[in-house]
Amino acid sequence: MPFIHSEFMLKNKTAQRLYHEHAEALPIIDYHCHISPELMAKDHRFKNATELFLGGDHYKWRLMRTNGIDEKLITGDGDDFDKWMAFAETVPLTIGNPMYHWTHLELKRYFDVDETLSPKTAKAIWEQVNSCLASDGFTARGLIQRSNVELVCTTDAPGDTLEHHRRLKDEFDVRVIPAFRPDLKKVDFSIVKEIDFFHENGCRLSDHAVDDFSEETVKALVFLAGEYAKRGWTMQLHVGALRNNNTAMFNRLGPDTGFDCAADMNIARELAALLDKMEQTGGLPKTILYNLNPKDNYTIGTLMGCFQQGPTPGKIQFGSGWWFNDQRDGMEAQMKALANLSLLPRFVGMTTDSRSFVSYPRHEYFRRILCNMLGQWVEEGEYPADWDALGAIVRGISYENAKNYFQFKRGKRT
Amino acid sequence: MPFIHSEFMLKNKTAQRLYHEHAEALPIIDYHCHISPELMAKDHRFKNATELFLGGDHYKWRLMRTNGIDEKLITGDGDDFDKWMAFAETVPLTIGNPMYHWTHLELKRYFDVDETLSPKTAKAIWEQVNSCLASDGFTARGLIQRSNVELVCTTDAPGDTLEHHRRLKDEFDVRVIPAFRPDLKKVDFSIVKEIDFFHENGCRLSDHAVDDFSEETVKALVFLAGEYAKRGWTMQLHVGALRNNNTAMFNRLGPDTGFDCAADMNIARELAALLDKMEQTGGLPKTILYNLNPKDNYTIGTLMGCFQQGPTPGKIQFGSGWWFNDQRDGMEAQMKALANLSLLPRFVGMTTDSRSFVSYPRHEYFRRILCNMLGQWVEEGEYPADWDALGAIVRGISYENAKNYFQFKRGKRT
Amino acid sequence: MPFIHSEFMLKNKTAQRLYHEHAEALPIIDYHCHISPELMAKDHRFKNATELFLGGDHYKWRLMRTNGIDEKLITGDGDDFDKWMAFAETVPLTIGNPMYHWTHLELKRYFDVDETLSPKTAKAIWEQVNSCLASDGFTARGLIQRSNVELVCTTDAPGDTLEHHRRLKDEFDVRVIPAFRPDLKKVDFSIVKEIDFFHENGCRLSDHAVDDFSEETVKALVFLAGEYAKRGWTMQLHVGALRNNNTAMFNRLGPDTGFDCAADMNIARELAALLDKMEQTGGLPKTILYNLNPKDNYTIGTLMGCFQQGPTPGKIQFGSGWWFNDQRDGMEAQMKALANLSLLPRFVGMTTDSRSFVSYPRHEYFRRILCNMLGQWVEEGEYPADWDALGAIVRGISYENAKNYFQFKRGKRT
Repeated sequence: MPFIHSEFMLKNKTAQRLYHEHAEALPIIDYHCHISPELMAKDHRFKNATELFLGGDHYKWRLMRTNGIDEKLITGDGDDFDKWMAFAETVPLTIGNPMYHWTHLELKRYFDVDETLSPKTAKAIWEQVNSCLASDGFTARGLIQRSNVELVCTTDAPGDTLEHHRRLKDEFDVRVIPAFRPDLKKVDFSIVKEIDFFHENGCRLSDHAVDDFSEETVKALVFLAGEYAKRGWTMQLHVGALRNNNTAMFNRLGPDTGFDCAADMNIARELAALLDKMEQTGGLPKTILYNLNPKDNYTIGTLMGCFQQGPTPGKIQFGSGWWFNDQRDGMEAQMKALANLSLLPRFVGMTTDSRSFVSYPRHEYFRRILCNMLGQWVEEGEYPADWDALGAIVRGISYENAKNYFQFKRGKRT
Repeated sequence: MPFIHSEFMLKNKTAQRLYHEHAEALPIIDYHCHISPELMAKDHRFKNATELFLGGDHYKWRLMRTNGIDEKLITGDGDDFDKWMAFAETVPLTIGNPMYHWTHLELKRYFDVDETLSPKTAKAIWEQVNSCLASDGFTARGLIQRSNVELVCTTDAPGDTLEHHRRLKDEFDVRVIPAFRPDLKKVDFSIVKEIDFFHENGCRLSDHAVDDFSEETVKALVFLAGEYAKRGWTMQLHVGALRNNNTAMFNRLGPDTGFDCAADMNIARELAALLDKMEQTGGLPKTILYNLNPKDNYTIGTLMGCFQQGPTPGKIQFGSGWWFNDQRDGMEAQMKALANLSLLPRFVGMTTDSRSFVSYPRHEYFRRILCNMLGQWVEEGEYPADWDALGAIVRGISYENAKNYFQFKRGKRT
Repeated sequence: MPFIHSEFMLKNKTAQRLYHEHAEALPIIDYHCHISPELMAKDHRFKNATELFLGGDHYKWRLMRTNGIDEKLITGDGDDFDKWMAFAETVPLTIGNPMYHWTHLELKRYFDVDETLSPKTAKAIWEQVNSCLASDGFTARGLIQRSNVELVCTTDAPGDTLEHHRRLKDEFDVRVIPAFRPDLKKVDFSIVKEIDFFHENGCRLSDHAVDDFSEETVKALVFLAGEYAKRGWTMQLHVGALRNNNTAMFNRLGPDTGFDCAADMNIARELAALLDKMEQTGGLPKTILYNLNPKDNYTIGTLMGCFQQGPTPGKIQFGSGWWFNDQRDGMEAQMKALANLSLLPRFVGMTTDSRSFVSYPRHEYFRRILCNMLGQWVEEGEYPADWDALGAIVRGISYENAKNYFQFKRGKRT
């Protein structure tokens, strides 16, 4: 049996039934990611497996550095095939790491590769992937279309012309919508025009890295929250990253190259005060709280309950396992905390949060893990085998909740 | 098979045997809760399911708010049946939340309801519950008597006349004893008279919310600890709540209405210094440390070991999963930390910590989870199937340890 | 079947095969412990089970205090047999605590005791152990030789003459090498001579307790790191202990007697800055980061990735479950964090970190838990049953990685 097979990660019969009957066929709403609108607009063709799999992917770079590989074969000017081989040497060592599962899901779903990647198989897989990439239907747009994606939100700065998004609106069947991510150090009243411009271009979400709770950060966020609330937007707060920890490598490679970690600052009092201030000032919009350190799961999972308010079910969301938590244990811990402390069935579910054009199987991975957890509860007698209720929960978290929650405008074709 | 059945949460044979032979029949010592002595003294009759299940229960309110229900049907002036329906809509969504298990245990144990609560069954269950509540034996006292409760400690402020407790002593078979919970901002020497007065009325426990480690808090606690130590009392410290986070709702509904969360302040150094200061000043009484944020499990679980001292076994206790942790995962995490870091068999076990007159099945729930955990260890070969030792452990944690530890005076009838 | 049997802790077939084929027979490299070089040099003979098992072992002392035992029978002048009985009363209560497993592994592996220790069996086991201790091959050296130990690093202060180590080099088959643990409050340039002296005596590791990030601590560590980096040493940082919390007992018994706990200070920003400063100053040596509070697992597990650099695979290590985390749940949590966030197969594995001459079965315990975890992943389809890859992973973590990583000089006989 190949490593990736129909019951992968579905470790009980109930999980298998839930996944295949209710989750597998649903389209994807990827409401937060970092893929390039430009590459989509230009319908970029990837030159080989190395560009597609290793380009910009700091998750893989970190693991390769950990494996003792020289930077030349990671971000340097090494030969692309040599880089692929260095990656292939590392993959078998990613036991217990999401990279092992992601890589093989990606190879299977896009390139029909059944063998696991290792130095022995690396050359054949390299050729198989490259041959696909040279053929029709494997460009940036083609890869997304193969992924059963209905809608993607990119992440964009104020000042962006959004020209790629407009071109994609005309040319591409998949809806590609901007999300608004301003630099919190540069927020002033004139930003309202940018918000309006994004709104006209379909934007309904913002995204913020909350790495501190300085007066400046709080002031900017409270102001922005009011603007989002007015327009029915959702505000995403990503809390608790500690970035650019290696000065030498930062000087050499810049940000987002694999030198960040999970902070452990105290956030409860500060985040509670921030949300309260929003509520009391211009209004608290629909909000998704993501934490990078799982020690904060219970603070996030209980704090959200202090600001829930009808009529929007799940108005305040606990974001799915973010970045380093985007793996089996992290997702389960987040979902168990959410279930124990709030209402799991109101969860808007997964995002790829990725720069990669082949990361959509992470939605499949998430759905399998969700169904596995629910199925285990049912088989252990913790919830009845009520298929209507369970099916609705699975469909909701996999797709329908996001569709209802974000209230994107109807696309041109739907 | 009904959802609540004899082997509910008992997922292995050893667990089933331990529970049924050693835990099931034992009475309950509920040494910490918030039920109203007045309602007991007056033997209150509940007018319907909504008053009984939803009255004062901020756990349920939070979940209903999360489900998008209007406050009118939560704490507002909505119709009682409509409120019940709103709750019934929410219950099927509490998959993985203790509410699902608590609700069905309560419906089964008190009202013999086998169906799960949902909009479809809500009306029939409403009628069944209301019909019981109108009959004999379902008043405040009746409900407690049905629960196999031997002793209850309420939570009472200095200045309370304790008249209800005295009346209950004369009239009620179940022992109802006050616990002492002073406002730490108002402690002075004259409080000793109050302590004596509570002592005369059978009180042997105090309770304190430690939301900060200010000089004032530390001073008050050190003084009180000495008084408790003198009298052989137990001191409960509930550490790490962050309260009243939503100003608008606080202004509308006041405290204890569902707007609190788990803090994440640093506690190790401060709590260690507090206990040390007590030890060096008036004496460190028997102490139960509860933490609201599970990130503190290892600090509490290791700190307690620094102050253990014969002849009292388990003099310093790690309190059972508190508030948001009072659920399967929270209780297991607390018990595994306790077992790994200390002696689980010395644990004084469960409290309801509840305002509800039908929350006693939480003791049953706890005992099932305890037996399940022990049974799994045995079946996986981590502890021998030594039934004498295991039976003694189960009986100890379920009942006997609390009886020995708190040293309540003999009741009038026992 | 005796409690300790061939498949102890190996709960699936894959685990059993991995352990017996790849882990069981491998020698031990115990690169961090606190056993006495003097007792080894003098080949100390233990007078009885109490001296061997209870002498200096504050893990056991804490548990006995928790059990209500008088200090006289713990660290006091009580009779040795009475102390043994007090320990035997406590052991059956250590269900879920590593003490239960350690004790029975030690009794089985060194003294062929199959019965579990309890008041009933205590006398027979006392006699059996004492009879062995009086015979050949059960001295300090004999016990180590029975343990399949290849190399031990002790922990030694600058100024130590290392005379015991030199004697052991001449007289003892097992390599006993010093590790360098200076007082960070007393570091100045002249310490370089001590480092050189340790180096000449085979030392390749240092050890530091990082209980704070004061300017003094940071300055000393940055200086030392540069010296270690020059010499190819490994630096161990043990982060997050809060020590000597009970003043009364500290005054009576001194440090390291069971009155320490897990701190909860914030470490991410401080530790990141420390490593960065080392990297930018004299160089960052191979480094092992140990955390005492498991809430820091994700900070450590992600921070290490910021400083990995070829050509050394796994240059920055996440140290195995330390002290209070040295148990099944703690080791699994550390290994799962390591796997999810880094490369588990590059892990240098277990240390005893112990003062005891019979603690080597903790390596066996660790290997069983490692194999059990890997076996479960394989049987649940999370990694293929690739026996070559799995065998290499098990051998690496159990032994080979440490051998390659630390680069000890060849011993006289190997």
